[in-house]
Amino acid sequence: MNTNKNPFFDKKPNVYLSDILEILKIKKKIKKKIKINNISDLINSSKNDISFFNSLKYFELLKKSNAKYVITSQKYNKIVSKYCKTIVVNHVLKSVALICKVFYPNSLDDAVDLNVSNPLQKNFKKVKFGINVLIGKNVKIGINSIIGHNTIIESNVRIGSNCIIGNNILIKNSIIGNNVRILDGAIIGKKGFGFLPDRKKNLRYPHIGIVVIKDNVEIGCNNTIDRGSISNTIIGKNTFLDNQVHIAHNVNIGENCVITGQVGFAGSSSIGSNVLVGGQAGISGHLKVGNNVQIGGGSGVIKNIPDNTKVMGYPAKDIRRFLKENK
Amino acid sequence: MNTNKNPFFDKKPNVYLSDILEILKIKKKIKKKIKINNISDLINSSKNDISFFNSLKYFELLKKSNAKYVITSQKYNKIVSKYCKTIVVNHVLKSVALICKVFYPNSLDDAVDLNVSNPLQKNFKKVKFGINVLIGKNVKIGINSIIGHNTIIESNVRIGSNCIIGNNILIKNSIIGNNVRILDGAIIGKKGFGFLPDRKKNLRYPHIGIVVIKDNVEIGCNNTIDRGSISNTIIGKNTFLDNQVHIAHNVNIGENCVITGQVGFAGSSSIGSNVLVGGQAGISGHLKVGNNVQIGGGSGVIKNIPDNTKVMGYPAKDIRRFLKENK
Amino acid sequence: MNTNKNPFFDKKPNVYLSDILEILKIKKKIKKKIKINNISDLINSSKNDISFFNSLKYFELLKKSNAKYVITSQKYNKIVSKYCKTIVVNHVLKSVALICKVFYPNSLDDAVDLNVSNPLQKNFKKVKFGINVLIGKNVKIGINSIIGHNTIIESNVRIGSNCIIGNNILIKNSIIGNNVRILDGAIIGKKGFGFLPDRKKNLRYPHIGIVVIKDNVEIGCNNTIDRGSISNTIIGKNTFLDNQVHIAHNVNIGENCVITGQVGFAGSSSIGSNVLVGGQAGISGHLKVGNNVQIGGGSGVIKNIPDNTKVMGYPAKDIRRFLKENK
Repeated sequence: MNTNKNPFFDKKPNVYLSDILEILKIKKKIKKKIKINNISDLINSSKNDISFFNSLKYFELLKKSNAKYVITSQKYNKIVSKYCKTIVVNHVLKSVALICKVFYPNSLDDAVDLNVSNPLQKNFKKVKFGINVLIGKNVKIGINSIIGHNTIIESNVRIGSNCIIGNNILIKNSIIGNNVRILDGAIIGKKGFGFLPDRKKNLRYPHIGIVVIKDNVEIGCNNTIDRGSISNTIIGKNTFLDNQVHIAHNVNIGENCVITGQVGFAGSSSIGSNVLVGGQAGISGHLKVGNNVQIGGGSGVIKNIPDNTKVMGYPAKDIRRFLKENK
Repeated sequence: MNTNKNPFFDKKPNVYLSDILEILKIKKKIKKKIKINNISDLINSSKNDISFFNSLKYFELLKKSNAKYVITSQKYNKIVSKYCKTIVVNHVLKSVALICKVFYPNSLDDAVDLNVSNPLQKNFKKVKFGINVLIGKNVKIGINSIIGHNTIIESNVRIGSNCIIGNNILIKNSIIGNNVRILDGAIIGKKGFGFLPDRKKNLRYPHIGIVVIKDNVEIGCNNTIDRGSISNTIIGKNTFLDNQVHIAHNVNIGENCVITGQVGFAGSSSIGSNVLVGGQAGISGHLKVGNNVQIGGGSGVIKNIPDNTKVMGYPAKDIRRFLKENK
Repeated sequence: MNTNKNPFFDKKPNVYLSDILEILKIKKKIKKKIKINNISDLINSSKNDISFFNSLKYFELLKKSNAKYVITSQKYNKIVSKYCKTIVVNHVLKSVALICKVFYPNSLDDAVDLNVSNPLQKNFKKVKFGINVLIGKNVKIGINSIIGHNTIIESNVRIGSNCIIGNNILIKNSIIGNNVRILDGAIIGKKGFGFLPDRKKNLRYPHIGIVVIKDNVEIGCNNTIDRGSISNTIIGKNTFLDNQVHIAHNVNIGENCVITGQVGFAGSSSIGSNVLVGGQAGISGHLKVGNNVQIGGGSGVIKNIPDNTKVMGYPAKDIRRFLKENK
């Protein structure tokens, strides 16, 4: 999704560089009124956007980014300033949170959508609804889809055709493809577990990303799939998830993956296609798992995993080594 | 349950051997019209049923089976044909899925039961209902049972007497005994996580089994207990399950077991009686855990466990060895 | 909470020592009618209460206890009788369960609260309610709080001001502070997984404790937080919990803790302040985790952890040792 056209969060229309510098308490004279269009991650930035850089992991994205301004720390200033104009701050994520709040004042809390109501059948052609279904404003649902009892679909969510959405489900801030199955009790699109800890009162991190679920996906019972903070959370085509799976913010899962019960993905990890993950395995945050990878049940993955690899163990290692060591 | 009288899925009445061979693309002339009554697992098959064999693990069941025809692969043809007539295919499970679909055309998807409605008190003698309870057609509930708010009980489910079924629960395709407690948020009887992976669109595996919950069982909050594919998922008498437990399809748990929080059982495992499982332990699929076994918290069980054994570790091993190695 | 004024369970007013001895089948002549006010844990006992002692772990609490009578086994009789009058029994917990049932006859089962109904706005000043919210008798909710759709708040629960309680939530037997967020699908305050196993029919352990959630706490989606048996379950100020976390009865978590996804705490453990727990970690029961502790993702904690320590592994050990051993 191009977050410049984010349907889920109202963006403040006129934000200027001078506003941003003021919020960050940076004293610097700006001659012209420079309008900043949006805050975005490096890869999705348009040319009048502001973005941020706080780890060398994202150097390749930096090189390709269209962002005009990039918030970074003194440590990376030299590198970043080769590609974009920099705004140097002490605490990158805290600064991003503050600026997000300027663009999207309603992105910090997961307020309940009080605009939902029982759907009018005439507005949803060839869609079947259960009892006590609650639908927000401007929701789109494709033909031949079914929405189960007590399910809540918040404003602006889009669901494709031929989908079966079960009972007692909550969907917010999400765009869902065709032929998708979402099983009972799943919670899709709530804000991620992101905040800047403080001993008095933690500062919540804004979540203006969404959840994108591609065609033919199956999401299991009682799954929790959090939306992204600045980027999106994405589940690729034809991927199947079993029950009680947890997917944190900004995770990107490829196509044709099989994720079995009680697996957890920490934030911002990227998983390839044709990946099999055994039950109760955990994948740490900010990792890259390649294509055709198999992760044994109960594994704890704390390093990147290259393509075509089978791993198992805690921490996860080559499966032959794990089995040999544990005869 | 004798699946010949499955109350949850409408069975097509007249299926002939020639129909089955045609679906499996086996060219073979059949002289007589041979009627096939049902598809079933080896142990529950009646004499006019078709069954299947794809692992030597099930050899003992094969010897006792009443099935007339058994689908198998070339590899096992010689063994199986000593006991039954064989139908040799390239892909046993895919063939079973195709034939199941013939007998039970509605067993592939977990469609929402749109026949539910608020119960009429006169139809349920001495049963107390909360608010917004939804009950399907032909549901039976014993006296002195309570059904909590927002709970959905789909068509044909049977619940015994003196049960407390909490709030926000979904029960489908299940037969539940007396004095059973099901705590809030549990999801019982949805189809298992079974499918034949395909890079274009996964082929869902039919689930015509049910969930059987015996007397005095307690099922914890937010548990997910999937129904069986061809066999049933069974929770034995007086067994107690804590919160967030996941039980996959075809799992059979004995009597007087104690399963603590966040434990997961993969498909088709068989657990004895008087088994204690510590929190977050995982049991792989198709295993046999004996009676009086104790499995330490966090363990990953990947082998069969004999009776009267205490194990711990990942992979699970004798608990004395585990503790010695981890001093 | 002083359980002498437990708002959630009706206490039988006149219980005498002779009643208690009769139930425990102890034959002993009592001259005077000695009234017992309540059953309580050692630390919360008032001078006319009965308490219990069954492990040397609680010796420090025994020394400070105001309890008049303490139920214990022969093994500890000599120690306990230095501080209080003892009642010696064969099975301490079974005896406590029996006596609890005398004081609190309704504390064994989690019966559905059939007193809930849609709230009258005039009774809740400046509180916003979603659709199909069910509120019990004598519930108090502070100003500017929001209660989401389909959420159930049982009788006598107290919620502070400026709280956001999401959708499909169940709260019972709980006292919740100000500025608390409870995310969708959470189940707070149900009885813990406590019972005395019996091969015929397990004896449920009474749960007369409550859940106390302090100011600024965030509870994640689909969390399960059980109330205490005799003591309370407590989540300290400014602590944040991610999705699918399970907290068993009597757990006490300090302030400013960060508990990530799918973590589980077994019963009666005490966690300090400023503790970070990585995803899927498990903490065994009756442990003491100090302040400023960091527990790596996937760890299994089976020993006490001192202040200012970083641990990882299964079983958890010093993180440097874990990483060195797992290069």
